[in-house]
Formats: sequence, C-alpha cells, structure tokens
Amino acid sequence: MERRLTPTRGKAKVRTDRSVLDDLLDSAHVVHIGLSLPEGPFVVPSSFARDGDRLILHGSTGSPWMRALAEGAHACLTVSEMTGLIVARSAFETGVRYRSAMMFGSCRVLEGQEAQLALGLLTDHYLPGRMAEVRAMKRKEVAATLVLEFPLDQWSVKVADGWSEDEEDDVAGDAWAGVVTMETRYVAQTPAPDLRKGIEVPGSVLRLLEP
Amino acid sequence: MERRLTPTRGKAKVRTDRSVLDDLLDSAHVVHIGLSLPEGPFVVPSSFARDGDRLILHGSTGSPWMRALAEGAHACLTVSEMTGLIVARSAFETGVRYRSAMMFGSCRVLEGQEAQLALGLLTDHYLPGRMAEVRAMKRKEVAATLVLEFPLDQWSVKVADGWSEDEEDDVAGDAWAGVVTMETRYVAQTPAPDLRKGIEVPGSVLRLLEP
Repeated sequence: MERRLTPTRGKAKVRTDRSVLDDLLDSAHVVHIGLSLPEGPFVVPSSFARDGDRLILHGSTGSPWMRALAEGAHACLTVSEMTGLIVARSAFETGVRYRSAMMFGSCRVLEGQEAQLALGLLTDHYLPGRMAEVRAMKRKEVAATLVLEFPLDQWSVKVADGWSEDEEDDVAGDAWAGVVTMETRYVAQTPAPDLRKGIEVPGSVLRLLEP
Repeated sequence: MERRLTPTRGKAKVRTDRSVLDDLLDSAHVVHIGLSLPEGPFVVPSSFARDGDRLILHGSTGSPWMRALAEGAHACLTVSEMTGLIVARSAFETGVRYRSAMMFGSCRVLEGQEAQLALGLLTDHYLPGRMAEVRAMKRKEVAATLVLEFPLDQWSVKVADGWSEDEEDDVAGDAWAGVVTMETRYVAQTPAPDLRKGIEVPGSVLRLLEP
C-alpha cells in the first residue's frame, strides 16, 4: 500500500536527501516497530541495522509480533533521536531538536546463509569488528532466530535543528533563549561477573568508548 | 478494549511494580505513539510528561494524528531507553540492556484551565522551574494547542539489566564478556543568535547541565 510520504505539518523540517536518513539510521540504536494488530495498535522497540537499502531485524521465532512481521504485516518503523532542548522565551515556543524517520513497508524472511550474514551485520552494527573476535555462529543459533529484512523505499524524514521562534515582544524582553544540546554515548565497560581472569577488553569495546 | 499486559516472551524481564514505570517515564524524553490508521500502522515520536496517573501530550490542532487521538482512537504509547550493550562471548548472545514500557488506551481532550495547567507541566517536565522564569501563557497560545491526557491504567514494563548468558563452552573460552553502559545527557548550552546582550543563563538551564 502506498503511504503518504509528505508530512502535512512542519514542512520546513522535512528532508528528502537520502543521506540524512542513512546518517540517522547508522547512528541510532533503537527502532520502534508499529503494527496494526487485530486487538489494536502495537509499538515495540527493537534493535536493527541498516544494510544498503534495507533494515535488518531479528528476534525469537516464538515472538508473536515477529511472526506477524514474518507473515508480511504492514509496518511503520520509526527511528528518532532527540538532539537538544530548544529553550524559548515563552512556554509556548519551547520545544525539542530532533531527527526522526518514518518508514513504511513489509518484511521478507531471510533464511540460511542470508540470515547468517544478516545476523553478523547486526552484531557489527552495535559493536563494529566484533564478528572477527568471536566464534562462528552455530547452525542451531541461526535456526532459533527469525531474521527479517525491511525495504527502505517508502520513508520520510524530519529534522528540527533550529532555534526558538519567539514573538518580537518576547525577544525584546528579559527571558533567555537558546539550545541545550543532548548526547547519547557509551560511558564505561564492566566485565561480566563470570569472566575468566586474564581476558583483556577487546578492541571492539575499546573503540566504542573512544571519545 | 482490554489489551494483553503480560508479554508472552522474556517473562524474566517483566516488572509489575508501578514505580519502575514511573521512573522510566519521568526520566525519558520521547514517547512513540502508535495508531492503526485506515491506511496502515503509524508511529510518531512526541514529547510528553507524566502527571500522576496520566500522560500529557500536546501538538498542533492541525495535526492529523493529534486529531485522531483527540477523537478517541485506540493508541499504544511506547517509551524505551537503551541503557547499555550486553557484550557476549558469541554473536548469538549479544544484546542490549533497556527499560521499556507499553501503554494502551485512548486520550481525552483537555480544555481551558485544564489545558493551560497541563502545558505548564509539560514545560516544567523538560526544564524544571522554567514556568516561573517566563511570562504567563496567552489565551491564543492555549487555543492553538491540542492538549490531551492519556490514562496510565493498561501498561506493561520490561527491564533488561543482566549479563550475557553464554554456554559453558563459551565461558571457558577466550572471548571477553561484559556490559558497555550507555548514557543520555545534556552536554552544553548555546545562546540563541538573537539573544539580547546581558541576559544570563537561567537557573533552569544551569540545573539541566549539572553533572
């Protein structure tokens, strides 16, 4: 089904450059997957990775919403990142800076070698270089995982990166205006309680923590 | 409509203590609102604030999805926060630490004094103390805003705060395991380009930036 890809509101925030979508998807960690289930709307957060013109999703073969996706249910995938708080001179103009993408479509199930490669991409999306540090996946592990690809062909992106738009009277007044930027980052590593002595923190983890 | 509030998967992650829900909602900045529209599922990120047993939402009176909510559409509101990366000894066990809440229900439109008070709560949720620093809201500002409340009575919460659950063979191996914690915080303030000289950064903004 064709979906409206030109938002009706906030047109100045719309971006049609594919690189803006890719930048957001490649730096984000969570996608919110929306389904219209028989009992009502359903939104579940999930990990994901972009690979070219598709997103890779995965989950347990026993998950009802993964099964609905596997059966071709129409889905809306939304990725958003708040990048700052817009402090205005009035409550009314106060708002947030953000980047957000809405993507519409249906999934395709990946199997065998395709599924295994996609799972490797997922791991390396979160921890670049990790696949080279761990053992190969086992056949039973791939079999226990439902791996899906979602096409990136129906999408819209909005970016709010401006300042407060206060009325003249407010600008002439005494209230402060500006932006407080927000950042999400990895801050520290903690070894697992059952980690054997003498195993050093791997390069993939050290790189995540580089400033 | 009654919704299933006991997830079928990952039961060990389920939390039924209301304080876990409140902690998540009070520290989060974005809610993903899911609707089953005639053209398909729709998920939009939005700002929000919790006030007791309700969430406050707001948007333009011209926004189609806000109007659908105002008309009582069933909605699924999801708030999630990734708190870390679970680094396992295998790709299969690699995962994320998170807190997430799914809330089901329908909105009620707030008007007049109720709407104005709710808008103040929203501003103070993002920037505590800000309402005391800015001028009062104007009647036309309240009129231009659609303000909704969403009841917190049908919800489920999951928290993943553990470690990788590797097989014995993997634990005995040479791969590292642990957690890399993730943090979202405000990092800096920048005055608006049109800020008049001599206006100091207000207490509300300074407090956001305290470590």
